Amino acid sequence: MGDISFSNGTSNGNGNAVGGQRKSCWYEEEIEENLRWCFALNSILHTGASQYQDIQLLDTKPFGKALVIDGKLQSAEIDEFVYHESLVHPPLLSHPNPKTIFIMGGGEGSTAREILRHKTVQKLVMCDIDQEVVEFCKSYLAVNREAFCDPRLELVINDARAELERREELYDVIIGDLADPIEGGPCYQLYTKSFYEFTVKPRLSKGGIFVTQAGPAGIFSHTEVFSCIYNTLRQVFSHVVPYSAHIPSYADTWGWVMASDFPLMLNADELDLRIKLRIKGENRYIDGKTFTSASTLSKAVRNSYG
Amino acid sequence: MGDISFSNGTSNGNGNAVGGQRKSCWYEEEIEENLRWCFALNSILHTGASQYQDIQLLDTKPFGKALVIDGKLQSAEIDEFVYHESLVHPPLLSHPNPKTIFIMGGGEGSTAREILRHKTVQKLVMCDIDQEVVEFCKSYLAVNREAFCDPRLELVINDARAELERREELYDVIIGDLADPIEGGPCYQLYTKSFYEFTVKPRLSKGGIFVTQAGPAGIFSHTEVFSCIYNTLRQVFSHVVPYSAHIPSYADTWGWVMASDFPLMLNADELDLRIKLRIKGENRYIDGKTFTSASTLSKAVRNSYG
Amino acid sequence: MGDISFSNGTSNGNGNAVGGQRKSCWYEEEIEENLRWCFALNSILHTGASQYQDIQLLDTKPFGKALVIDGKLQSAEIDEFVYHESLVHPPLLSHPNPKTIFIMGGGEGSTAREILRHKTVQKLVMCDIDQEVVEFCKSYLAVNREAFCDPRLELVINDARAELERREELYDVIIGDLADPIEGGPCYQLYTKSFYEFTVKPRLSKGGIFVTQAGPAGIFSHTEVFSCIYNTLRQVFSHVVPYSAHIPSYADTWGWVMASDFPLMLNADELDLRIKLRIKGENRYIDGKTFTSASTLSKAVRNSYG
Amino acid sequence: MGDISFSNGTSNGNGNAVGGQRKSCWYEEEIEENLRWCFALNSILHTGASQYQDIQLLDTKPFGKALVIDGKLQSAEIDEFVYHESLVHPPLLSHPNPKTIFIMGGGEGSTAREILRHKTVQKLVMCDIDQEVVEFCKSYLAVNREAFCDPRLELVINDARAELERREELYDVIIGDLADPIEGGPCYQLYTKSFYEFTVKPRLSKGGIFVTQAGPAGIFSHTEVFSCIYNTLRQVFSHVVPYSAHIPSYADTWGWVMASDFPLMLNADELDLRIKLRIKGENRYIDGKTFTSASTLSKAVRNSYG
Repeated sequence: MGDISFSNGTSNGNGNAVGGQRKSCWYEEEIEENLRWCFALNSILHTGASQYQDIQLLDTKPFGKALVIDGKLQSAEIDEFVYHESLVHPPLLSHPNPKTIFIMGGGEGSTAREILRHKTVQKLVMCDIDQEVVEFCKSYLAVNREAFCDPRLELVINDARAELERREELYDVIIGDLADPIEGGPCYQLYTKSFYEFTVKPRLSKGGIFVTQAGPAGIFSHTEVFSCIYNTLRQVFSHVVPYSAHIPSYADTWGWVMASDFPLMLNADELDLRIKLRIKGENRYIDGKTFTSASTLSKAVRNSYG
Repeated sequence: MGDISFSNGTSNGNGNAVGGQRKSCWYEEEIEENLRWCFALNSILHTGASQYQDIQLLDTKPFGKALVIDGKLQSAEIDEFVYHESLVHPPLLSHPNPKTIFIMGGGEGSTAREILRHKTVQKLVMCDIDQEVVEFCKSYLAVNREAFCDPRLELVINDARAELERREELYDVIIGDLADPIEGGPCYQLYTKSFYEFTVKPRLSKGGIFVTQAGPAGIFSHTEVFSCIYNTLRQVFSHVVPYSAHIPSYADTWGWVMASDFPLMLNADELDLRIKLRIKGENRYIDGKTFTSASTLSKAVRNSYG
Repeated sequence: MGDISFSNGTSNGNGNAVGGQRKSCWYEEEIEENLRWCFALNSILHTGASQYQDIQLLDTKPFGKALVIDGKLQSAEIDEFVYHESLVHPPLLSHPNPKTIFIMGGGEGSTAREILRHKTVQKLVMCDIDQEVVEFCKSYLAVNREAFCDPRLELVINDARAELERREELYDVIIGDLADPIEGGPCYQLYTKSFYEFTVKPRLSKGGIFVTQAGPAGIFSHTEVFSCIYNTLRQVFSHVVPYSAHIPSYADTWGWVMASDFPLMLNADELDLRIKLRIKGENRYIDGKTFTSASTLSKAVRNSYG
Repeated sequence: MGDISFSNGTSNGNGNAVGGQRKSCWYEEEIEENLRWCFALNSILHTGASQYQDIQLLDTKPFGKALVIDGKLQSAEIDEFVYHESLVHPPLLSHPNPKTIFIMGGGEGSTAREILRHKTVQKLVMCDIDQEVVEFCKSYLAVNREAFCDPRLELVINDARAELERREELYDVIIGDLADPIEGGPCYQLYTKSFYEFTVKPRLSKGGIFVTQAGPAGIFSHTEVFSCIYNTLRQVFSHVVPYSAHIPSYADTWGWVMASDFPLMLNADELDLRIKLRIKGENRYIDGKTFTSASTLSKAVRNSYG
């Protein structure tokens, strides 16, 4: 690597300038048991706890305000738009005319915010199990305040599965914004073939689309849950599209999977046209070209599919 | 979050056990270039800045509230009494009847608090150069609030040397509660032979005693500044007593040096008697036996004296 | 010690579970001033120093053997193939018949290794300024040992610019595997318009292609040097193609830029065909689809171009 | 505190100088769950594992070579003499003529090394349960090599209790160099009243002395095990002397307790005389004055005794 080391983004050197107050407090996360990711802190804005988990809102130097739950980064002010635009816009844009949407989870409010930018949306149900987390985000995440007040939003505090089974109306798009399916974790049951087949699919309207966040999708990390979610959905739906994007604050590439029993519209130019016609305001991440690239997985990831 | 938090690739599901709120935020200090000391954080209570330095009040898990200036721990709620009792009581108790006291520095207020526990004290001048630090501590360090309001206290914002030279009255005890004498540091001049000889000594009353914090005094760290301060004072005063104590939050043994041109009273039983007679409330650290031990330095430290 | 080890106050008895050998040693890198990336260590295999820089070969738990120069990760065993396949194969495959190649830098040997997999290559000049780094990698990076012995390789220890100006023959592909252009850094001059125009271009044969690593290319980090290198090359060459890939051990997406005065062949199927015909062994990262995705930049990155 | 913060020993500032290789690798230890102590590393010299524990020999920048077992620092080259001189010399010097010694644990060899400096010693039994640790220290701790070869040393691999009960001869001094009595830990049984009364005491010769390391003895940490060991021994022996010393690499003050049914000789001048007469070479830490100070506990520690 050359005449001398290429610095990968490091710009330290001025011990004094970067010392002192500016670097004495840190947020530290174990990405894996043997891998740590540490952000310098400006302050710890708010802390709380629900019956399910601990909640913190931190002000970090590299990524701005960060929502941390049980010691794990949920989303960072500076780049949460990559996650939420990727989760929401591809399925809504692929649908000819999405009017009714159901979010499993999403209590942070950012997923609702992106959905409500779509002029076609008439009704949005957000079903999160943790009231305290929802209240915490309502109070402290200014960027989502408007979404929480939108008359089209119906907020329900309940288990997503129970709620879907309880309801009778159909949805044009159902979105899974849930914790990864950790063996024995709270969301494991919400990623199973039977859940998709007997709970999700029956609640999709004709031409309806299901999308879920699908965990890390890096050249190595995609084997944790991403490949498995993709392969499960392929057993339930006839059209399945996995895609991914690098999210700086996660120190990894993240994945999503879109699925339907009807062909998915993915043409770049048509996506750009629909963005112009249907979405209020300017996307920061998703457009036709970006989605084309995001939905073309690298050889290293493709190889681990059956 | 909860049912719905998307975990960003963190595979250890048990947030509370492994990480969780309790251990994700840390205060980190470089004790030396190659040695770090890290406290888990509950919160960052207050931050401020003066023309001279950055100020933080942290709530730490191992040591309670901690005052940090320019990224260096000044004092921790749980054990600052060791530092301040050691700085104040030996000189005041060694003096037959200390009425007037002068503190160089001490803006935190804890040194004044300990001095004002002495019933003999009639007048106390605290001279700190940094108004903002003093205001910060006044507002946030509840434990010193009473001291800041004591009518015997005269608070002056000025350079300690200039103030001592400006004044004409004499003091029974003069206390140096200043930053270590770092070459080129702001306090370097306040540890020199000429400063002691021509500025401090002339302001001591008959039988007067000077004491100063003297930096780290561990078996290795005492060579940084402690030995040098001790040796300097021996050139200026006829009676000089160095002593030390381990302060957990400093991760080191700390040192102080007491000096006078009159014999210093150090008898353990007599010290205990004077403590009972003169000091309001109960000492937590200093008594006769403790001082006997503190003023008997280990062979490793004694060996580096001329 | 077991029965006999005196534990120095550590109260968690279960060494293996909580800490133990597996997690007590860490490699820590400052990705940016306020961002740290830490790998658990198995061992520090080798350390060395040249007149230019410090060199370490570490055995890390998350990424395998890691080459670190001046405290910055150069490449990690587990994913260096992403960086080196991306640097080498797109330009060589876009060229109809690459016979002669020149590497500026590349002392690690991995770039040469990937080039020498191309059956068309008859002559490869690797010009690195740091003899010690080259010797270090020759001795310790087994994966590149064969490449260092390949008769087609001519290894030169010299400044890349001086060497290119000294030589008269032309090259089908010139590769920049150099440190990022840090203001005042050693490689800054090797990323300038005049260097590309008057030193590189004259040494390219008809249809020749230049490629360079171009630093971080994340949605935020691409503004550091990637955009600037891309814009500079557009002033010198008529066909310029930027592309990027996420490299886990760098905790970022990385960028490369390919440039030529002749149209670049980028068709995915044709690339796959040429891979089959021209490259010995199987690529782990680059194929037609992967390159199509890699060379389609996201909206967030495209937006910062003039 | 004062005109500006007093730096407690921090001397950072030169980002570049201290960056790079010199600071990228760290040993990290959790002193407590919320408190970390980190040493910059030069290298990881040796690693091993026994049926009981993991073993590492590290080369650290602040404290030299460090023996780490199950992720916990056992002893550091630079200051292990404080621990081992404090454990060995006070009991041996208090005894009129110590000929036979028994060490429970001590596999590192440093305790034996200090004992064998005493000219009066004719026989030393070291009983450690972990053969691998003993072999590891024999091979790698050059400083103890001579001790391991001393003909007076009888090395036994066995459980200390079983060995003491098996033997019939008596010892002038029995030394406990064992892990702290952690509830459920391997050494818990070796700190009980019944063990002292029925296993240790019967093996002491007339005038015999027992000593044990007694864990952290800081103003707060002494309540973990130190006070409890002291109080237990007071129920079994008529003369009990606790003492302590700050050990820099432990980031704490450490404690030991000496006990006998015969009065213990503690006069400082007599201790100095016996050191001169009986000990080969020069002590680095223990002398009469040092022991007087070490055995005079501070008020904060004394207060927690019945």
